Amino acid sequence: MKEQVIAELHVVPLGTETASLSHYVAACLNVLKEAEDITYRLTAMGTIVQGPLDRILELAREMHEVPFTMGVKRVATTIYIDDRRDKLISIEGKIKAVLDKNP
Amino acid sequence: MKEQVIAELHVVPLGTETASLSHYVAACLNVLKEAEDITYRLTAMGTIVQGPLDRILELAREMHEVPFTMGVKRVATTIYIDDRRDKLISIEGKIKAVLDKNP
Amino acid sequence: MKEQVIAELHVVPLGTETASLSHYVAACLNVLKEAEDITYRLTAMGTIVQGPLDRILELAREMHEVPFTMGVKRVATTIYIDDRRDKLISIEGKIKAVLDKNP
Amino acid sequence: MKEQVIAELHVVPLGTETASLSHYVAACLNVLKEAEDITYRLTAMGTIVQGPLDRILELAREMHEVPFTMGVKRVATTIYIDDRRDKLISIEGKIKAVLDKNP
Repeated sequence: MKEQVIAELHVVPLGTETASLSHYVAACLNVLKEAEDITYRLTAMGTIVQGPLDRILELAREMHEVPFTMGVKRVATTIYIDDRRDKLISIEGKIKAVLDKNP
Repeated sequence: MKEQVIAELHVVPLGTETASLSHYVAACLNVLKEAEDITYRLTAMGTIVQGPLDRILELAREMHEVPFTMGVKRVATTIYIDDRRDKLISIEGKIKAVLDKNP
Repeated sequence: MKEQVIAELHVVPLGTETASLSHYVAACLNVLKEAEDITYRLTAMGTIVQGPLDRILELAREMHEVPFTMGVKRVATTIYIDDRRDKLISIEGKIKAVLDKNP
Repeated sequence: MKEQVIAELHVVPLGTETASLSHYVAACLNVLKEAEDITYRLTAMGTIVQGPLDRILELAREMHEVPFTMGVKRVATTIYIDDRRDKLISIEGKIKAVLDKNP
């Protein structure tokens, strides 16, 4: 299996008229829905993705562009990468490792 | 209902002998399990909590202390707060708002 | 000397009509200017502070409140803490430790 | 002038025996020193860079790789991007905008 990382992505539009940002998040999500080579989970604070690092950076780059196409003038994007190379990691595996120790 | 914020907490021990950190995360989780006034969700990258801001800061402070009690010498903790005051927000509500727009 | 941590604070107002946020940052800075027991450095991306952890959390909490008093409805605040207990750390000391190894 | 973003990069090696990380940071810094098309500032918490977004992602990717070449098994990297397109921004310009309002 190809090496995978887990990353968390936050794409935050700034200077929007309203404090409601969910339609921007929904539009960014399309980038991940169309990507067949990665796994993602939407959370209340961002999106967690699993896949090859270069691919994730490419997708984060695309998601970052989405609010600009919707008229936003400034976007703050955070890409937080967890890259472990002594064993294969997965979104479910990381959660299970914690819950096994604290059910 | 009392005003609530949603926050994401990462408590990362540094200088641990192993790259495996799940037993530290499991120990930190006890702080949240014992707190009756907040809601939490474990994710692959951290923990998302919902509750009054001051209470969340207090719990984050306690969680930050846990790895030190386990012998760790350095801890990097991130507290990321989303505080919206024009409407009540919740962990499930934020996810639903996105999925309603992009099912 | 009392134990100190170094932390980075980002207070980001959301839903602010304009993409210019510097007047909010300037107002938040007052909280730190008036605090005599901590050291701070303004950067292009946030503020780096040095001081006792509980005091820093208290000040971050105050800074987080500032944009709300200016009419903002939603604020995203990040508190990133580096707490090392095997030696004293300082803002200047951390930078020097890197530059000593890579002048 | 070509459009530029400002970003903050944290490359944090995990599972490193010692809590001292400055020699890793020093090694990562070489990637930026050799890059002629970007500007950077070392801070106590990371590195702030200014340049074209694609170039910054490329350099962050290179920096992320450095601790692995030094024997580290797990690296947590954060890339925090501030991309404003209604006016040119710079590291010094952003700081000045705040200090002009709060000298």
